[in-house]
Amino acid sequence: MDLNADLGEGFGIWRLGDDEALLDLVTSANVACGFHGGDPSTMRRVCAAAAERGVTVGAQVGYRDLAGFGRRHIAYGFDELRDEVTYQLGALDAFCRPHRTRVRYLKPHGALYHAAATDEVQAAALVAAVSGYDHELPILCAPGSTLAQLAVGAGLRVVAEGFADRGYLPNGALVPRTAPDALVTDPEEVAVRAVRMATERTVVAVDGTVVPCPVASICLHGDSPGAVASAALVRAALIDAGVTPTPFA
Amino acid sequence: MDLNADLGEGFGIWRLGDDEALLDLVTSANVACGFHGGDPSTMRRVCAAAAERGVTVGAQVGYRDLAGFGRRHIAYGFDELRDEVTYQLGALDAFCRPHRTRVRYLKPHGALYHAAATDEVQAAALVAAVSGYDHELPILCAPGSTLAQLAVGAGLRVVAEGFADRGYLPNGALVPRTAPDALVTDPEEVAVRAVRMATERTVVAVDGTVVPCPVASICLHGDSPGAVASAALVRAALIDAGVTPTPFA
Amino acid sequence: MDLNADLGEGFGIWRLGDDEALLDLVTSANVACGFHGGDPSTMRRVCAAAAERGVTVGAQVGYRDLAGFGRRHIAYGFDELRDEVTYQLGALDAFCRPHRTRVRYLKPHGALYHAAATDEVQAAALVAAVSGYDHELPILCAPGSTLAQLAVGAGLRVVAEGFADRGYLPNGALVPRTAPDALVTDPEEVAVRAVRMATERTVVAVDGTVVPCPVASICLHGDSPGAVASAALVRAALIDAGVTPTPFA
Amino acid sequence: MDLNADLGEGFGIWRLGDDEALLDLVTSANVACGFHGGDPSTMRRVCAAAAERGVTVGAQVGYRDLAGFGRRHIAYGFDELRDEVTYQLGALDAFCRPHRTRVRYLKPHGALYHAAATDEVQAAALVAAVSGYDHELPILCAPGSTLAQLAVGAGLRVVAEGFADRGYLPNGALVPRTAPDALVTDPEEVAVRAVRMATERTVVAVDGTVVPCPVASICLHGDSPGAVASAALVRAALIDAGVTPTPFA
Repeated sequence: MDLNADLGEGFGIWRLGDDEALLDLVTSANVACGFHGGDPSTMRRVCAAAAERGVTVGAQVGYRDLAGFGRRHIAYGFDELRDEVTYQLGALDAFCRPHRTRVRYLKPHGALYHAAATDEVQAAALVAAVSGYDHELPILCAPGSTLAQLAVGAGLRVVAEGFADRGYLPNGALVPRTAPDALVTDPEEVAVRAVRMATERTVVAVDGTVVPCPVASICLHGDSPGAVASAALVRAALIDAGVTPTPFA
Repeated sequence: MDLNADLGEGFGIWRLGDDEALLDLVTSANVACGFHGGDPSTMRRVCAAAAERGVTVGAQVGYRDLAGFGRRHIAYGFDELRDEVTYQLGALDAFCRPHRTRVRYLKPHGALYHAAATDEVQAAALVAAVSGYDHELPILCAPGSTLAQLAVGAGLRVVAEGFADRGYLPNGALVPRTAPDALVTDPEEVAVRAVRMATERTVVAVDGTVVPCPVASICLHGDSPGAVASAALVRAALIDAGVTPTPFA
Repeated sequence: MDLNADLGEGFGIWRLGDDEALLDLVTSANVACGFHGGDPSTMRRVCAAAAERGVTVGAQVGYRDLAGFGRRHIAYGFDELRDEVTYQLGALDAFCRPHRTRVRYLKPHGALYHAAATDEVQAAALVAAVSGYDHELPILCAPGSTLAQLAVGAGLRVVAEGFADRGYLPNGALVPRTAPDALVTDPEEVAVRAVRMATERTVVAVDGTVVPCPVASICLHGDSPGAVASAALVRAALIDAGVTPTPFA
Repeated sequence: MDLNADLGEGFGIWRLGDDEALLDLVTSANVACGFHGGDPSTMRRVCAAAAERGVTVGAQVGYRDLAGFGRRHIAYGFDELRDEVTYQLGALDAFCRPHRTRVRYLKPHGALYHAAATDEVQAAALVAAVSGYDHELPILCAPGSTLAQLAVGAGLRVVAEGFADRGYLPNGALVPRTAPDALVTDPEEVAVRAVRMATERTVVAVDGTVVPCPVASICLHGDSPGAVASAALVRAALIDAGVTPTPFA
């Protein structure tokens, strides 16, 4: 099982999350590429720190929206989204080169992640960007999403991710964020759920049923208080359960 | 002799210069990378059009200053300039990949060009960016500049460029823009000077003396009225003189 | 009847439209405020040129999206849109002060114009921005839009605008841009329609019926080839018909 | 004696400093205006919180450089700097209006502060912006600076500020940041120096001599660890010494 987290999301003087601490826990780093967050010097630092630790680097691509941190939906057309994603992929790759490695996957950020789950135009733009850039590059995304479907259709590799700290519906979908059971806040419970995902590829839905959760990566969050401690607990629990976190790429 | 020009310097809805016309004249396209001008879709279009015509693509890297078009000096530190240039190199390379080609050289833009001619910190940052990205990548710049010296010292290839439409001092330097003879405005004279540069590697200085001008590329300008016509005249005159414009890279 | 047009929509080195020519034709200038286009020096120039000619200045507020020229819908929340619009209002007002005048109205730009026509959150944010800034400031917008309704409900003055170069449906709405009759391209016909709007407050719909068009301003476009000539024809036709273009504010 | 501090310097999701805590300590808030930091919603919040506490709001204007936080010198021309400063003044004023107050002074930020201390073009641009916007608006800056001199020459009011946590040379100038005694780090000593500035208008220079320090405001810093505690100590020490912090404007 792979562990991924968003990293390098500061900008200039501003910091966000604890990149160093998270890099000691994850196996895949979703590195922000400068459009919703991230800046060239941060990208360089995170890529270097990831390479030191053997952590895989992926491009966390987002909308061009620093003011909104990429969390506001933007009605991009196909061409401009494909091109802005291509630009971000290349920019991040430049910081992997000195470490004789490269960008190993793509994961959309924020509102783009959500749009690509259902919007065919934006999902297709992501697929076109990856296909044009490097057909071997996997896309890390939600299983069953429009993005996952279009990517598979285009012959790309898809890696499904799960969320140990999110509630699931009996049909395997996430509980919407506005609903009461959207978040699992108890770190111990989050760790238990992560172990179940890793060892049984299942999750306990909000109605108590056990449903399939066929994921190859678990997303850890690092930008809230206690997030790093919770992520550390997940990692420790996985290792206790005999699961060695390993990059998927 | 190579002919280079700045291309792809629009941004979003805004256009600047006639990219298509210039691409029919030059052998090397200095493509703006989004920091002083240029945007991902423009970069894609220019790279595609250049590839069709066999025009070499170089990264025209600039300060992060859309509002000032990269023409205002910014007191960057070494690290941040090296990293922003690295970012731009990678971003442009992403648009060369679909055409099975890549960025073939770097040329600094505007105030960065001028700073790198004399400022050791900024020149060294450019050299470090190129060295870290691809040690084979030549730098296109003014002969004798600090950038040229540091690049050679670092084992990089330097390609010197000349300006057929600029006045030269007897010592081989350009007449400062504020002086009366800074610009050569007669297109016929510009073409004659270009031919002399290409065939004799000399230029007639403002005092009438003939001075060495050991350049491998001539820079054409495309953003003023009549610029494209003047550039076409230069190209035609070179061909008439038996000089076939050829990319240096 | 008032004549309005979008002005000052360049950015930095980039120009868009012919501000000077349009300022000789319109009575109200929708000045871009720097978020979708426009920059401080352009704002100063346009405000000065408008003041010289007795042209009223309004704030053409837009999304923070230079790369998309404010033409892509962005899912702003209420607070952030209200605050970004407030910011733009104040910024433009600063350039009216030296001319002992001020911003006289607000008109949303591009995708914000369209969103505010139907989206209650974004329309309410515009209303809140104007109410908080200056309760006397009219909003220039499409008659019958959600924005118009909410503004009237909040006690603001609404000024309805019509488009002499757009097709109208029998119900008084515009023909969608994707439909065949969306645009009226013959300048003479545009002028005839403008005169009808000004003298009879009616428009001939696509099915030939004459429908009410209760507008107090006609929007002229300046960013396409021939646009200024067409705008001049509208103005001349109005004057020939005895209608003196007069600012509504 | 007035106490001022930089506030509202976050951007979007990113925070910097503890605005709420500082607002309980200062009498004048230098509010960032969106060019080097700050965003419209932050500006609204800080202006509201300042108004509640009776804290005066000033415009902390900076270069257009979010990536560099306004700390890199930019070679602005006179017109563009005057216009960008004017824009920022108006934008901030818009958030003061709902509280029936307004921007009460201007203070340049970061590299602009330093440039205006010696560069006649940039200092003159600041003076022109204030003169054109509101001739009654004071400028808060270093005593003896080029900015102070030009402002006085233009009939503007200048308010001099001192730094209780910076070393002073015997000639009354600050010790350069690169020198060993540039910073006073002991909070108790900072407080003692603030009291001396407030009660005697003097400072003990690095060589032990007591030199005049004719300032009307003391600048507190809030963006380093322990900064708020140190600022609180200064305020408490002033009150203990019988000095009630009072806005200068």
